[in-house]
Amino acid sequence: MSKLVYDFREGGKERADLLGGKGANLAEMTRMGLPVPPGFVITTEACRAYLATGAEPAALADQVSAALHELERRMSRKLGQVDDPLLVAVRSGARFSMPGMMNTVLNIGLTDASVLGLAERTGDERLAWDSYRRLLAMFGDTVLGVDSAHFDRALDQAKTARGARGDLDLTAADLCTLVDRFKEIVRDHTGHEFPQDPYEQLKLATRAVFESWNTERARVYRQRERIPDDLGTAVTVCAMVFGNLGNESGTGVAFTRDPATGRPGVYGDYLPNAQGEDVVAGIRNTLPLQALATLHPGPYAELRRIMQTLEAHYRDLCDIEFTIERGTLWMLQTRVGKRSAAAAFRIAAELARDGLINEDEALRRVNGEQLTHLTFPRFAESPTAEPIAIGVAASPGAAVGKAVFDSGTAVRLAQAGEAVILVRGETNPDDLNGMIHARGVLTSRGGKTSHAAVVARGLGRTCVCGADQLTVDGHARLFTAPGGFVVTEGDVISIDGSTGAVYPGEVPVIPSPVVDYFEGRLTPDDSIDDVDTRELVHAVHQLITHADRRRRLGVRANADTREDAARARRFGAEGIGLCRTEHMFLGPRRTLIERLILANDDAERDVALAALLTPQREDFTAILTEMDGLPVTIRLLDPPLHEFLPDLTTLSVRVARAEAAGEQDEDDQRLLRAVSRLHEQNPMLGLRGVRLGLVIPGLYATQVRALAEATAARIADGGHPEPEIMIPLVGATRELEIAREQANRILDDVAAETGIDLPHLIGTMIELPRAALTAGDIAGVADFFSFGTNDLTQTTWGMSRDDAEASFIPQYREQGILPVSPFDTVDREGVGRLIALAAQEGRATRPDLQLGVCGEHGGDPESIHFFHQIGLDYISCSPYRIPVARLEAGRAAITHDNENPTG
Amino acid sequence: MSKLVYDFREGGKERADLLGGKGANLAEMTRMGLPVPPGFVITTEACRAYLATGAEPAALADQVSAALHELERRMSRKLGQVDDPLLVAVRSGARFSMPGMMNTVLNIGLTDASVLGLAERTGDERLAWDSYRRLLAMFGDTVLGVDSAHFDRALDQAKTARGARGDLDLTAADLCTLVDRFKEIVRDHTGHEFPQDPYEQLKLATRAVFESWNTERARVYRQRERIPDDLGTAVTVCAMVFGNLGNESGTGVAFTRDPATGRPGVYGDYLPNAQGEDVVAGIRNTLPLQALATLHPGPYAELRRIMQTLEAHYRDLCDIEFTIERGTLWMLQTRVGKRSAAAAFRIAAELARDGLINEDEALRRVNGEQLTHLTFPRFAESPTAEPIAIGVAASPGAAVGKAVFDSGTAVRLAQAGEAVILVRGETNPDDLNGMIHARGVLTSRGGKTSHAAVVARGLGRTCVCGADQLTVDGHARLFTAPGGFVVTEGDVISIDGSTGAVYPGEVPVIPSPVVDYFEGRLTPDDSIDDVDTRELVHAVHQLITHADRRRRLGVRANADTREDAARARRFGAEGIGLCRTEHMFLGPRRTLIERLILANDDAERDVALAALLTPQREDFTAILTEMDGLPVTIRLLDPPLHEFLPDLTTLSVRVARAEAAGEQDEDDQRLLRAVSRLHEQNPMLGLRGVRLGLVIPGLYATQVRALAEATAARIADGGHPEPEIMIPLVGATRELEIAREQANRILDDVAAETGIDLPHLIGTMIELPRAALTAGDIAGVADFFSFGTNDLTQTTWGMSRDDAEASFIPQYREQGILPVSPFDTVDREGVGRLIALAAQEGRATRPDLQLGVCGEHGGDPESIHFFHQIGLDYISCSPYRIPVARLEAGRAAITHDNENPTG
Repeated sequence: MSKLVYDFREGGKERADLLGGKGANLAEMTRMGLPVPPGFVITTEACRAYLATGAEPAALADQVSAALHELERRMSRKLGQVDDPLLVAVRSGARFSMPGMMNTVLNIGLTDASVLGLAERTGDERLAWDSYRRLLAMFGDTVLGVDSAHFDRALDQAKTARGARGDLDLTAADLCTLVDRFKEIVRDHTGHEFPQDPYEQLKLATRAVFESWNTERARVYRQRERIPDDLGTAVTVCAMVFGNLGNESGTGVAFTRDPATGRPGVYGDYLPNAQGEDVVAGIRNTLPLQALATLHPGPYAELRRIMQTLEAHYRDLCDIEFTIERGTLWMLQTRVGKRSAAAAFRIAAELARDGLINEDEALRRVNGEQLTHLTFPRFAESPTAEPIAIGVAASPGAAVGKAVFDSGTAVRLAQAGEAVILVRGETNPDDLNGMIHARGVLTSRGGKTSHAAVVARGLGRTCVCGADQLTVDGHARLFTAPGGFVVTEGDVISIDGSTGAVYPGEVPVIPSPVVDYFEGRLTPDDSIDDVDTRELVHAVHQLITHADRRRRLGVRANADTREDAARARRFGAEGIGLCRTEHMFLGPRRTLIERLILANDDAERDVALAALLTPQREDFTAILTEMDGLPVTIRLLDPPLHEFLPDLTTLSVRVARAEAAGEQDEDDQRLLRAVSRLHEQNPMLGLRGVRLGLVIPGLYATQVRALAEATAARIADGGHPEPEIMIPLVGATRELEIAREQANRILDDVAAETGIDLPHLIGTMIELPRAALTAGDIAGVADFFSFGTNDLTQTTWGMSRDDAEASFIPQYREQGILPVSPFDTVDREGVGRLIALAAQEGRATRPDLQLGVCGEHGGDPESIHFFHQIGLDYISCSPYRIPVARLEAGRAAITHDNENPTG
Repeated sequence: MSKLVYDFREGGKERADLLGGKGANLAEMTRMGLPVPPGFVITTEACRAYLATGAEPAALADQVSAALHELERRMSRKLGQVDDPLLVAVRSGARFSMPGMMNTVLNIGLTDASVLGLAERTGDERLAWDSYRRLLAMFGDTVLGVDSAHFDRALDQAKTARGARGDLDLTAADLCTLVDRFKEIVRDHTGHEFPQDPYEQLKLATRAVFESWNTERARVYRQRERIPDDLGTAVTVCAMVFGNLGNESGTGVAFTRDPATGRPGVYGDYLPNAQGEDVVAGIRNTLPLQALATLHPGPYAELRRIMQTLEAHYRDLCDIEFTIERGTLWMLQTRVGKRSAAAAFRIAAELARDGLINEDEALRRVNGEQLTHLTFPRFAESPTAEPIAIGVAASPGAAVGKAVFDSGTAVRLAQAGEAVILVRGETNPDDLNGMIHARGVLTSRGGKTSHAAVVARGLGRTCVCGADQLTVDGHARLFTAPGGFVVTEGDVISIDGSTGAVYPGEVPVIPSPVVDYFEGRLTPDDSIDDVDTRELVHAVHQLITHADRRRRLGVRANADTREDAARARRFGAEGIGLCRTEHMFLGPRRTLIERLILANDDAERDVALAALLTPQREDFTAILTEMDGLPVTIRLLDPPLHEFLPDLTTLSVRVARAEAAGEQDEDDQRLLRAVSRLHEQNPMLGLRGVRLGLVIPGLYATQVRALAEATAARIADGGHPEPEIMIPLVGATRELEIAREQANRILDDVAAETGIDLPHLIGTMIELPRAALTAGDIAGVADFFSFGTNDLTQTTWGMSRDDAEASFIPQYREQGILPVSPFDTVDREGVGRLIALAAQEGRATRPDLQLGVCGEHGGDPESIHFFHQIGLDYISCSPYRIPVARLEAGRAAITHDNENPTG
């Protein structure tokens, strides 16, 4: 028969799986000799058995009984004993802290009889009735399922009747009356009397804790946090100590460092004459913890000593709950405390500097998500303005600016020095320039993966999208919000990309010092005035430097412009892993591609191609200059050509309207013919990638020539260009072979023309399942593979990202079909299996094959760990994700390469 | 040093790799003691060496020289010897017969000097000059690259000058003059004299044969026929015999059976006083071979004996070339003869019946492509009418009927007993009913995989699509062809789905007796009047029966209607492998789905779902009835719902036009809102398949209920239904798990309601790479897998079939990137690897997992062999492909399962 109940003296923090976090830490503190009230823990195993069978395991009653007798023996009184009752607190405590589960029932053991005994023994009638009414409310709510609002209302009525300002103004008599009222509420809502058998109280409370594991809220939370559903919770049962025994008593919470900033020192709150839940409930204003120094110098000094002991023992920030009962300090809980992103970095760095932990451990304690968070500007404080709409928090940060309704105006105002927010029903590739110039982007349609969201994240722009309460009228240059609120062009608005809130007017914004550090505007040695900022920058510097030392993965950037390339380099990119040449043909240059598409014959096509050469060469030269000495992977034109033309439906309607009005726009008609001809049912699976290169004579050749000439020019100027030509969407070896032969011919030509040897690699994206499945063959003609995980995910899952995230993925996540979107974190079983297979078979053919990733997963922490594990050479991500990628690549190395992974 | 030259006496037919087909068979006949002129073969190895280095291998000259000396010794004269020249014929001969390669140069060894010696020795001056002018023309054309038109024109001029009707009317003097003219042509076009050194002639001719391996035409042919590019060709050098030595001489070709019908007997052509190429060139009308019996009874009798010997030796139809020189018979070539599809079946069956080959070998000698060919009706003879357009031959057969321009009219006229051809710009799902009722379908747009083509093939309807010379005006109910030809509704047209030709008026059609056999309208025992038809039907019966005996793969049908199911069963289907429930909602029933889509709330949706129940139950009952006792795999709704609504662009234009006209069609506007809401960028990767089932409450439940009720009703009626529920587009195990749980609940409900146990399986399509990659996991909740190879090919390759086949696949095939479209034949390396992996890992989880294929590849011979090899349980294809599938499944078994694969 297994052991289902542990005395606090039997456990320790290493047993959190069995005892839950709370129980294990109480046991740990007991073992450390700290003042913990006696108690015991009912294990998660008991909970699992209960949940599986619907009944307590047979052995549980006896074991609880034995533990309770031992507790009664030590406390020299019995649970609910009429003349001098032992009271206990029952708390849930799972392996991971989980909101939504039953929290605490205090004062178990009080009954109509023992409440009098308690009054008698403590000499405090008020305490007794106060404790009893608390038991009734907590038990009623969490065990019996009576809505707590009923108890709150009765309490308010009692206070009103008495003209009391707070709980403390209620007398013992008031509380006694309130107890009657509470018992009535229980009777009315459950049809039963409040149980007067204290053992029954304990049994029901235990069962309620077990059952709270499966509340809807707990399940949703676990799913989101990826906590397994089958762990179960433990139950701690602990002798009550009373913070509500008059002004010599009280209860509080404390942190060994400031969980908001990481600053060392004393942080916490104290509430005199109160029981634990009062602090959290915010019923009365708490005192700062330091106030204890004056109120209770002895217990305060002891608490400070204990805090130091705990931090040294746990080697981390500790979060503590304590109670002072008539001058005696009791520890009710401790755990490694949650903290803000800034605090996480600062604490980890400082503990490492203090030698409490090593640098690897410090790095393990921060993560990319926290670093991301630190790079966003934020609103100075909770804005007092009410949001006029809440959309999808698509790209974090805070942005303030004048609302503008088209890309051109955005560019114009921005160039005149104005901060603008681009507001659109939805964005399209034509809006790129406007998005670049805007501080933020707001749309009324589209989800987290809409064009607006994806591009904004890539650009590091704040974005709120899909704010569907708004009606955007681009023509009238205004949007309306619910309640008739109207924002016209030029009105200032503020958008919060971390919450999705849209505010009218200006809300103050604070820029990120971490971005200033990566941009080189702040150095860790600067005399930064603000201490917290200085320490944060120092900490980020310390940890990212260690990550760089440890990581095995190279980090490159996805960058298409000189500006992106420069920023990426400042942020630590070791090259460009993806330069999308199609982005060079947006905006006014779109006509260059349009002319190519509309060419009527070979001659016109050649003219159109010739016109591409110079702009491309200039782009490449600029980027190779910024990335001098580092590799630059240039992807030849990838998207279907009709993406450069207007949308079929829009254009068809325009032509139909013109015709109906008796007008004939010949340009539009010609365009419509071209758009119709190029229209595809499923453009993602159509004429794009290398297919374009093989089907449209001269297209890739022109691009390669531009790159070759740029390379030659850089070398002539004394530079060290390292171009890598990347052929997209290869599915068959022969495609790459032909494209490679063509490229090599051009490179040879330009080398001959200029007399300059042109260094280069030619490789391919692996972004189709077939490419992965035949990678061993493809590697025979590739210098490198770059895994295009976006497209590979789309084809492996048969899911168009735009379509899927707008329709069924949200429901899939809710139903638990997808724990996470495969577009956010690489799907190891499917897509990951293909990548691992391609990497292995590619290297089997060609051991020096260079392997990278250039899909958006290159910036996702969990995915980075996977890419490290399967031995890729580098990851590539948007410039703003570079710091995160560096950090996580370092973390991956210490996590997966060490002998002792929990070290 | 390897042996590069073989005397005919040294080889045999087993050495075709080295000696080429022609050389090996000449050697074989030499070994058999048949009258073959002496000669030798230069090996394919010599050719390969030449092509690799650009020069003859060092040893070749000596070996040719030695072989030539031996030939000269045996013939007692030397090559080009002035008084009595030895002449030789030089021919190419690869392992596989290949049009486009250099054919033959006869009479090598003739020079200005030896032509006189030949005249002298033969006493036939005319022969000598005739032979010389032939050498000049053949050598000029094929060795020196002079356009043969020049020689033809000079010959015509000579004939005109003489007033000659044919070659034979030219005198020796005429031919002598012509020789001068020919030499002049050679000089003018090459800048050199015709070589007067006979050894030089031989060397150049040999080299020309080598080089002809790489002509464009030869390369294209190899690519199409998937003949490796590195085989090379052999060169046969054979002492000349003369069919042009007067009327006692001649040349001919013969077949041991009729290659058109397979009928036994003597078939062939004979041309007196001629050299070989005259027969093929069709310069003069040939005599039937039987004429030889009178002309040259001795040689004829010898030829008949040799033909019998050869057929017994080769155990197959032989194709022979021979020459009679002054009454002496010489064999110049033999090979296993090409034959029509009908002949292939008949010959194989008869040889097996005669005990010359066994049944396995007979089955190996026919194939599915031939059987397919035999199932098409055909035009009675080459139509005398000129086609008015040639489109894409999309679905074979011959169809005649009145042109109609919409589906409704097609149905109406067809039901009134008229034969109709549905003519459309392009078809869409709404045209299905019209296509079902039409004899054939003609479109002006779209390729082999357009909707029209795919559906027509599925229906077994003749289809010509993409006839882009036609302008179809559906509104005016007419189409125009080049030259102002107009066809209006009701005009009769004829279309040939095997050639793509479109004819005005009626061209007589012959139905396929093989279809009549499979339909049960003809039995092999019937006294069929026509002997050829009777023998053909007998042969098909004999071979398909043997295939059924041998095959291990089950054969099921893709069938969505009672009629399809019935036909499939007649054709030998052992169940339905794919019943697409969406096809039940086309035509008038479309409104059922429309109502579901347009439902404004849960109540409306429930009403819409309820309306689906009865029609679905009726459909299922009908199909289960037809397939009583056999499995029926029902696929729950798969396509995106907007496929049931009008096209976004069309509808947008309609609404815009109405608005411009000041009209407001509220229905259209409501529809447009729904269409816009459901519109997807890439519907193939959007909300479809199981995603619909999980996101639209009640949809799959309704379908499962309909099936469950149909099953119960069938059992109540004493039937034996075997329904299998198939969940489409599963990518994650959890999707199938949820869908399966839902389905099981409904099945349990209906079982409880009816008191009838419902037999059923629940499985999934494997049509996404991720499903294949996680098949081991999915198999835990699947009773069967059915590989959906269409979608699996689309996602594995990242190619939308419609888009790709219309744009780049044709060019890819031309460029040799794709030897065959992966939509026609399963791509073994990519898609096939996934299928094999899924089959293996699925079975590892669940050894009794049933594995089938329901994509179009299930009807493709090469793919069927693959499915057999990886051990699937069954294939499923359209009813009309069932016979082919049965045949090829049998062939796969004898090809891949026997110890001796070449039998």
